[in-house]
Amino acid sequence: VLFVPLIPWLVPAVITLTTDFGLSDPYVGVMKGVILGIAPETQIVDISHAVPPQNVGAGSIFLRSAHRYFPMESVHVGVVDPGVGTLRKAVAIRTPTGTFVGPDNGLFAPVLMDQGFCAHDGHLLPAAVAVELQNPNYRLPETSSTFHGRDIFAPAAAHLARGVEIQQLGPRLTQIERGRIPEPEQGPREITGEVIHIDHFGNAISNIQGTSVPTGAVIRAAGREIGPLSSTYQSGPVVALVGSTGLVEIAVRNGSAERQLGLSVGDPVGVRVP
Amino acid sequence: VLFVPLIPWLVPAVITLTTDFGLSDPYVGVMKGVILGIAPETQIVDISHAVPPQNVGAGSIFLRSAHRYFPMESVHVGVVDPGVGTLRKAVAIRTPTGTFVGPDNGLFAPVLMDQGFCAHDGHLLPAAVAVELQNPNYRLPETSSTFHGRDIFAPAAAHLARGVEIQQLGPRLTQIERGRIPEPEQGPREITGEVIHIDHFGNAISNIQGTSVPTGAVIRAAGREIGPLSSTYQSGPVVALVGSTGLVEIAVRNGSAERQLGLSVGDPVGVRVP
Amino acid sequence: VLFVPLIPWLVPAVITLTTDFGLSDPYVGVMKGVILGIAPETQIVDISHAVPPQNVGAGSIFLRSAHRYFPMESVHVGVVDPGVGTLRKAVAIRTPTGTFVGPDNGLFAPVLMDQGFCAHDGHLLPAAVAVELQNPNYRLPETSSTFHGRDIFAPAAAHLARGVEIQQLGPRLTQIERGRIPEPEQGPREITGEVIHIDHFGNAISNIQGTSVPTGAVIRAAGREIGPLSSTYQSGPVVALVGSTGLVEIAVRNGSAERQLGLSVGDPVGVRVP
Repeated sequence: VLFVPLIPWLVPAVITLTTDFGLSDPYVGVMKGVILGIAPETQIVDISHAVPPQNVGAGSIFLRSAHRYFPMESVHVGVVDPGVGTLRKAVAIRTPTGTFVGPDNGLFAPVLMDQGFCAHDGHLLPAAVAVELQNPNYRLPETSSTFHGRDIFAPAAAHLARGVEIQQLGPRLTQIERGRIPEPEQGPREITGEVIHIDHFGNAISNIQGTSVPTGAVIRAAGREIGPLSSTYQSGPVVALVGSTGLVEIAVRNGSAERQLGLSVGDPVGVRVP
Repeated sequence: VLFVPLIPWLVPAVITLTTDFGLSDPYVGVMKGVILGIAPETQIVDISHAVPPQNVGAGSIFLRSAHRYFPMESVHVGVVDPGVGTLRKAVAIRTPTGTFVGPDNGLFAPVLMDQGFCAHDGHLLPAAVAVELQNPNYRLPETSSTFHGRDIFAPAAAHLARGVEIQQLGPRLTQIERGRIPEPEQGPREITGEVIHIDHFGNAISNIQGTSVPTGAVIRAAGREIGPLSSTYQSGPVVALVGSTGLVEIAVRNGSAERQLGLSVGDPVGVRVP
Repeated sequence: VLFVPLIPWLVPAVITLTTDFGLSDPYVGVMKGVILGIAPETQIVDISHAVPPQNVGAGSIFLRSAHRYFPMESVHVGVVDPGVGTLRKAVAIRTPTGTFVGPDNGLFAPVLMDQGFCAHDGHLLPAAVAVELQNPNYRLPETSSTFHGRDIFAPAAAHLARGVEIQQLGPRLTQIERGRIPEPEQGPREITGEVIHIDHFGNAISNIQGTSVPTGAVIRAAGREIGPLSSTYQSGPVVALVGSTGLVEIAVRNGSAERQLGLSVGDPVGVRVP
């Protein structure tokens, strides 16, 4: 019989990776090698390596929707980092729902704002502890100016996963860079948002929270009225529904809203309150 | 010296994932987060996330060929699920060669038939135990109608991997949905099959079992005679051979049968008995 | 509090995989199933499965740059194997910086040469121990002629990771096949290399070691002078820099050197010494 006991001090830590590195090069594998050299028992999980290159906002969207399904002790490494090697800071931020490690370029603020741990301007609320990753003991011995994912973020995450206190990693920060996800505009009779992601199925995911849509409201997209919110992808030939990320999305039954409705990132999505 | 002892109760369980989710979105990572929250020691293995969208038969083909190389205690999650949120059942099926979890839409019947655990009409033979996943204790607290992979299948697999008895998960089923893989026609002098998959190398894999081809039989495909079965990909410029899945496939040496012979899924493949 | 103790005999071994299999088919997952059936605690890491089909040299480049970031006890499986099933040998090579398992077709020589464990002609130096994988006890019971990754290399790697002595796996070899990566030509005033890889960002990576470039030397590529080495990707609109692999690469700021400069694999890259 198969039975895996849960001895607390043997529960492996989880480190997730979200990057724009793609999977064809060895970059992601190398980060995992560095992590396992420091924290050999870690469960490493890929959230996505298909963030569009240098698109920090898209990385925020992935991290925001995914991190809440992981154990709270998890360390989430995000590397969408066009400014690697320049003056932008490297940070780690511990919150009650997860610890985040990566460049301080706006990647993490939307995730923290969503959980109430940070203000619009990036000021941290007391539940969140952030540090700048300056302590050389928690980096690789040689630090390049081109691959901080390997040299700084992977080692920091591995040490945090093994129980190193976040304060050991560097000086405290009270503010992080503000985020880069466009917010919907909330009018009295209408919410005006936009498509922020097209997924693998061609579903067009907007920045409008499902919980903000009143009962009976009608969704508009692709220059037409889609209708009120449906409950499944099979409810009609073209549906608007609250997708698995909690956001309003537009879908075509057994097809692609991207291809069949011509939707793409940045296109408007509206909600008309009845 | 490196040595990992095999203490049976410390052997981590294996959960495999086969989906049509692709790897660009966070969907697969989120399922892994849910699994690790319940069963932190699990070894999670991706079989494929490139099943063509909503192509249940293609998912069956992947699961059928891959699952037999995993430990028998493994739990195989399959999510090719166009009917998510509709009336189709959610199932778990334990067999002597593996446990399967996913939608009851024909995905698993070909796998079970191949092992002799299920009849053509989906009736289960005594070696297989199937249940409908109804017990809310083994789901996420909130269950969406759009992402059962995360809300129902991942938690069920994780609980099964940790040793929960399958009967705890819901009421017993005696039949599952029949499968969706086309079967070859067996004539007195000829077997008539078809291409069911083109792999990454451009090899065209048919639905004809290698073991069903008599010695000296000649393979036909792409409107021409390919010849008798070869033993390696280097045996000729164009070869028919029994590939790693146990099925007859057509290959071009150091090239692509898809591109160079124009083969695609659904094209006929014949075997002429001498 | 989260803390994972490092009890040496509980540290899981690492096995990496580098192949040209792609990720759409179940081939990689099946290799992992075989490994976990033998060595259930193993940490399996994908380095890359996007080696261009049958391009042995490209596989060498990935392994050479990536393996040094993994623990020295790691076992690196490389499968770029156009000659599978023919007379080419199957090998395992243990070195002080890692153990390598795969076909003996030139895949590993560049990795070993780089570390000083092998001569240009493939003769091994004393620090490296190589064997031909002939012992049937460390293979799958049935060995196909089409998928040695599954039948021979995965089992060998798993047994090595569990502590089996390399000499158990087969007879000793004193020489392996010589490598297939083009070497740059070193003239008195000039180094002449070439692009050996275009990465996911469109950066063009040459075969010129960063350490071989004298201070003030000027890099040429794409029919123009790029300039001396920069330190970050943001240092100019077009930069030459020592990338994360230690090799000179050409990059376009927030863009693609492949697309914007028209660079591709095989194109010349020059270094003019001042």
